[in-house]
Amino acid sequence: MAKLQRLADLVEGEVSGNPELDIDRVAPIDQAQEGDITFVANPKYLAQLKDCRASAVIVVPGVEAPGMDLIVCKNPYLAFAKILTLLQVPQRPVKGIMSGAWIAESADVDESATVYPGCVVGERVTIGAGTTLYPGVVIYDDVKIGEGCLLHAKSVVREGCRLGDRVILQPAVVIGSDGFGFAPDGDGYYKIPQVGIVVLEDDVEIGSNSCVDRAALGETRIHRGTKIDNLVQIAHNVEIGEDCILVSQSGIAGSTKIGKHCTFGGQAAAAGHLTVGDNVMIGGRGGATNDVASNQVLSGLPLMPHKQWLRATMALPKLPEMRKEMKQMKKRLEELEALLQET
Amino acid sequence: MAKLQRLADLVEGEVSGNPELDIDRVAPIDQAQEGDITFVANPKYLAQLKDCRASAVIVVPGVEAPGMDLIVCKNPYLAFAKILTLLQVPQRPVKGIMSGAWIAESADVDESATVYPGCVVGERVTIGAGTTLYPGVVIYDDVKIGEGCLLHAKSVVREGCRLGDRVILQPAVVIGSDGFGFAPDGDGYYKIPQVGIVVLEDDVEIGSNSCVDRAALGETRIHRGTKIDNLVQIAHNVEIGEDCILVSQSGIAGSTKIGKHCTFGGQAAAAGHLTVGDNVMIGGRGGATNDVASNQVLSGLPLMPHKQWLRATMALPKLPEMRKEMKQMKKRLEELEALLQET
Amino acid sequence: MAKLQRLADLVEGEVSGNPELDIDRVAPIDQAQEGDITFVANPKYLAQLKDCRASAVIVVPGVEAPGMDLIVCKNPYLAFAKILTLLQVPQRPVKGIMSGAWIAESADVDESATVYPGCVVGERVTIGAGTTLYPGVVIYDDVKIGEGCLLHAKSVVREGCRLGDRVILQPAVVIGSDGFGFAPDGDGYYKIPQVGIVVLEDDVEIGSNSCVDRAALGETRIHRGTKIDNLVQIAHNVEIGEDCILVSQSGIAGSTKIGKHCTFGGQAAAAGHLTVGDNVMIGGRGGATNDVASNQVLSGLPLMPHKQWLRATMALPKLPEMRKEMKQMKKRLEELEALLQET
Repeated sequence: MAKLQRLADLVEGEVSGNPELDIDRVAPIDQAQEGDITFVANPKYLAQLKDCRASAVIVVPGVEAPGMDLIVCKNPYLAFAKILTLLQVPQRPVKGIMSGAWIAESADVDESATVYPGCVVGERVTIGAGTTLYPGVVIYDDVKIGEGCLLHAKSVVREGCRLGDRVILQPAVVIGSDGFGFAPDGDGYYKIPQVGIVVLEDDVEIGSNSCVDRAALGETRIHRGTKIDNLVQIAHNVEIGEDCILVSQSGIAGSTKIGKHCTFGGQAAAAGHLTVGDNVMIGGRGGATNDVASNQVLSGLPLMPHKQWLRATMALPKLPEMRKEMKQMKKRLEELEALLQET
Repeated sequence: MAKLQRLADLVEGEVSGNPELDIDRVAPIDQAQEGDITFVANPKYLAQLKDCRASAVIVVPGVEAPGMDLIVCKNPYLAFAKILTLLQVPQRPVKGIMSGAWIAESADVDESATVYPGCVVGERVTIGAGTTLYPGVVIYDDVKIGEGCLLHAKSVVREGCRLGDRVILQPAVVIGSDGFGFAPDGDGYYKIPQVGIVVLEDDVEIGSNSCVDRAALGETRIHRGTKIDNLVQIAHNVEIGEDCILVSQSGIAGSTKIGKHCTFGGQAAAAGHLTVGDNVMIGGRGGATNDVASNQVLSGLPLMPHKQWLRATMALPKLPEMRKEMKQMKKRLEELEALLQET
Repeated sequence: MAKLQRLADLVEGEVSGNPELDIDRVAPIDQAQEGDITFVANPKYLAQLKDCRASAVIVVPGVEAPGMDLIVCKNPYLAFAKILTLLQVPQRPVKGIMSGAWIAESADVDESATVYPGCVVGERVTIGAGTTLYPGVVIYDDVKIGEGCLLHAKSVVREGCRLGDRVILQPAVVIGSDGFGFAPDGDGYYKIPQVGIVVLEDDVEIGSNSCVDRAALGETRIHRGTKIDNLVQIAHNVEIGEDCILVSQSGIAGSTKIGKHCTFGGQAAAAGHLTVGDNVMIGGRGGATNDVASNQVLSGLPLMPHKQWLRATMALPKLPEMRKEMKQMKKRLEELEALLQET
């Protein structure tokens, strides 16, 4: 619970109404009850305010809400996220190395870290202050993990990989599995050893069951602040810039370099050995098969400007009809030609 | 082993032949041996019966199979499944909490449940009668699991989520990972805490390495009887109705509501914040980008009636040829126009 | 470290230069330093040799590189892989059954195998010589694992499945999860027991978080030497021939049979109950919806020859323009027809 004024200070906003109001929790506008704070990030939901039972609302400057206590700020959605963090995210307890965790003798685990039962931590691993390993996490030898990281159950970090500070791995993430590299050898394949590593920089988050493969040589690197959703594939030697968003089931093939502040929609993909610039947004199921210049919104396979893709895909269902019509036109054309030849 | 009459009773069918015949196991029609029972669910396989060496066959009424013992029933495929369950699925032994499992003191595990080594069960968890946790399952705090559930190795259920009765999780399923929600904050992103839960109702089954994300606020809910295949993504705040089928590698984006008795084919998807009605069937790799009304069979991206999609995609390879032909027609048209202007 | 001559012998190549040269490690051409060996597998990179600081280079016969020590051989890429294996892949230590692993009494684990903490090995399992189980691997009852296998952390092999020799499972692979089979029963579904197994033959490798489902009856089989990438779905009763390559996020639906030496690109798929011949290459996101004859390179959904697909997809963005143009042509055609009718 917190006073409305404290919440306003947290989000650099101003109270309009009672600063001493007690707020218990955050709720969506249509479910909020007394004691709740809600938010309106999108003007189209403003009309719902008159039926809303929340005690307070986060709004942008200029919104009228007679009889309601308000926090007025520039970015209500961000403010909502910050207030939710304060009110409803429990502190992680510091429990140290718990019974049932196996830690190699040469590992260096900070005393403010927490390692749950069923975790296995290899030789020469370092784990920073305030980092939590939930049950069943496996850290291979020679891994370095920074401060304030959160590795959920069953996540795996293979040998030699490095995680910065505040990295979050959702359950069952795999970091540093072998890249998919084979040299043809007669009819079969010879495995190319993958002796590189993966580096996840500060504030990277990776979703459940996603994989980031280790480099063949050198490193696969995800830069600071990039967020990756569930079931995403990042192949060996890929580099992804700062503050990118990769939505679920997308995949980046080997050695492709992606700039900063890019977004890949769900099930989107990039082929291997490409360069994608900065601020590129690729729509759901879009597929990059060539290099992509910066500052574009693209969709489709092959990629095209998103609006063009919308038109092209809307036209696609008409294709059979177009073929039929073309045949008819061709016939009429032939009739005209015949007629003119006669004359 | 069971007598033919007992099997017929099980499936509400009738014996034609020897009710005392001993049946050992179920086998496909082309591999069955003496002592086996097989089935013909599809009339096109009836011709194979004459070479079949099975001791008995499950058929629909009206099928002739001279010299063979039969179970005659309405739904041979369902009967096959029920008989297979009886004859060949071993009972799960009740082993209690085995050595090597870590159970929090405040957890309430029914005495008829089985918890294998390497499992970790958190505070205030309840686990119902006859439920089995295979090795390495991790249950976070405050989870409720019903009766007769089967959680295979390495599956994870995060804090506060609820599973009904007879829920099956294949290996490495993740329930309750954080939804993928971030508020833009300058060039970067601020993590929106995901404080909701996941509810899996009775008789839900989830396939290997699939993920169901917890809600931001409120709940992600899979209704009774829905079956989800491997590597499927269910995002935060999704609701899926009763008796749906989601085939492998499909994905449902955040806040989308799907009705009952829908099917999503392999690699199919629905974008976020949509409403899909009841009895909708979306073909493999189909993609819903808008709301979908009930009782339709659709394919493609964008979705269109399945038959139209078949025609459109069959026409697609002709597109380059069509363009060429159009250019020729245009030229001929111009020639005709020129000719007519002269006259 | 090894002498250049020894490396040449390893790869059946010849030294041009100093056979006594000491080589420490392998490096890419643009990062190599003194003591490194690099390789040129693709002639387009030959020009980079003049700025390369490597001590030695692996090349094909006929390449000139004045002042550099060479290994001359037919297949520099394969040679690079073999030399990398020799120089930089550490031997796996034999550690036996480590403290913190649970092994059923009836299991037969070879004394030269290694089982890390957190592994659980079921009843009647056999594990061959030199096989390593990394932390948290779960082997259900009655599994047979051959010699020299490498099962990475968190991989799971369910009851009765069989792995040949030198099989590699990357982290979190699931072998033998239930196939996705349900018999309609009124509005709902009855689970068809999946009582078959999975067989992975010698030298198969499976990538992180991929799944191979057990057969309903009989077996799902991956033949010798086939390599499967991350997040790939292999459904029940599938058979994949020798020396195939399945790239990340591809999926093969139930009962489909694939020949030998086939390649499926990223996110490609095959529908169920199909037969695909030998030496078929299906491009990224291609989708087989019908049987495929041998010796073809195909792409698209539906599949078509790869070159045709390239042309069709390049034409797709022009589709809206084509429709517009067709309407104009139709109008002009009508005008001509009207004109001719008058005359």
